[in-house]
Amino acid sequence: MSFTLVLGGARSGKSRHAEALIARHPAPWAYIATAEAWDDEMRARIAEHRARRGAEWTTIDAPLDLPAALAEAGARPVLVDCLTLWLTNLMLGEHDIAAAGAGLRAALAGRAAPTVLVANEVGLGIVPENALARRFRDLAGGLNQDLAARAASVHFIAAGLPLVLKGEP
Amino acid sequence: MSFTLVLGGARSGKSRHAEALIARHPAPWAYIATAEAWDDEMRARIAEHRARRGAEWTTIDAPLDLPAALAEAGARPVLVDCLTLWLTNLMLGEHDIAAAGAGLRAALAGRAAPTVLVANEVGLGIVPENALARRFRDLAGGLNQDLAARAASVHFIAAGLPLVLKGEP
Amino acid sequence: MSFTLVLGGARSGKSRHAEALIARHPAPWAYIATAEAWDDEMRARIAEHRARRGAEWTTIDAPLDLPAALAEAGARPVLVDCLTLWLTNLMLGEHDIAAAGAGLRAALAGRAAPTVLVANEVGLGIVPENALARRFRDLAGGLNQDLAARAASVHFIAAGLPLVLKGEP
Repeated sequence: MSFTLVLGGARSGKSRHAEALIARHPAPWAYIATAEAWDDEMRARIAEHRARRGAEWTTIDAPLDLPAALAEAGARPVLVDCLTLWLTNLMLGEHDIAAAGAGLRAALAGRAAPTVLVANEVGLGIVPENALARRFRDLAGGLNQDLAARAASVHFIAAGLPLVLKGEP
Repeated sequence: MSFTLVLGGARSGKSRHAEALIARHPAPWAYIATAEAWDDEMRARIAEHRARRGAEWTTIDAPLDLPAALAEAGARPVLVDCLTLWLTNLMLGEHDIAAAGAGLRAALAGRAAPTVLVANEVGLGIVPENALARRFRDLAGGLNQDLAARAASVHFIAAGLPLVLKGEP
Repeated sequence: MSFTLVLGGARSGKSRHAEALIARHPAPWAYIATAEAWDDEMRARIAEHRARRGAEWTTIDAPLDLPAALAEAGARPVLVDCLTLWLTNLMLGEHDIAAAGAGLRAALAGRAAPTVLVANEVGLGIVPENALARRFRDLAGGLNQDLAARAASVHFIAAGLPLVLKGEP
């Protein structure tokens, strides 16, 4: 297992940076999309991301089952975008989050091909008034810490510019 | 065009840092203020910022028309504080944001004097429940990315301390 | 006075990082806890933090009076976790925040033993709709700036990984 974790805020350019990291490797590339298009806002965002990626990318939709999607990606370089939406999907569906995290760690441990994970940093604002949002913030922060400890490199993106927190640029 | 973008959170010390960057150049300096004093809270904040700056600064109020204000600043070193309030003013007034962005880029491209732009990073908290706040967050993030790509240097400020994301300290 | 300020978001790993900084010095260590257990959520979080620390730590509860707690810690290396909850306690109790800040600065100026202060960065999200939250955000940002200017070193933590903003790693 040797993956890169790309962290950043909303509209920070983290997907674009992660795509550039994958494009250092020969195509074809796999894109694991965790977003579900419940509404027009999400549909527009998904369509925009998909239009930016070219024909060298195969999209695998995986709102919940990341281990299966990583197995399907196989030996191709893979980008998982993003873990924070995956966590949202797990929470909304009342899935076992600890078990899902263990499954993701096992799937990552078994991979040899280049792997880039994108996640949102969500803990730098005021404490949310909503208890569910506070629980989500805690889980997202815990997941980010756990993966950052295992990652070969961690990049924090602000305004499209990367800051290397760990490992190689 | 060769400008510096200063990014940071609320009360991070970004205005003070930007003022220090301008003060490396000979006075007189121009300060383009995008804030509008709709309430006492804003009036107090504007007065505090204005009191900190000395007589070497001329303030140009420009809630909307940054190209005109930059033209008025002319050959003086100029600080624009801040782009995030400017974007707020554009949104609240239902102005054409794409056209305003193009106007700003053209005005910056034509400048030779030192220019420092201040903007807020607003995307590192929980997803806002309010759709307008989400749209604002997307636009602010997009504007920051676009300007960061064009800037000669980008500084991120936390607790008054700068982190160089791009270019010269 | 020579202290380290550890800044970070919620669940960023800042307490763990601060504990590791203290553990570079010989035990016994003092832990000044500003958290008050008003509800089960806080009780669980406090218990989790306390369980992680070993027998070498003495906990001093100080929701409000940090100077007394720092005096009690005496010559032991001390970790204050965290200033943002302390500020919350001051605000909720309608205490004199400027006086409390002056008291903290005086207590820090008198210390010779290693001292690590933990604080939250809360200003990187959307402007809160709630006026009290905006005031809190301003005060927290001002406190962080003031202490960062006095600190010998300042570390920003994201996903458990430190970024040195000032001084020694």
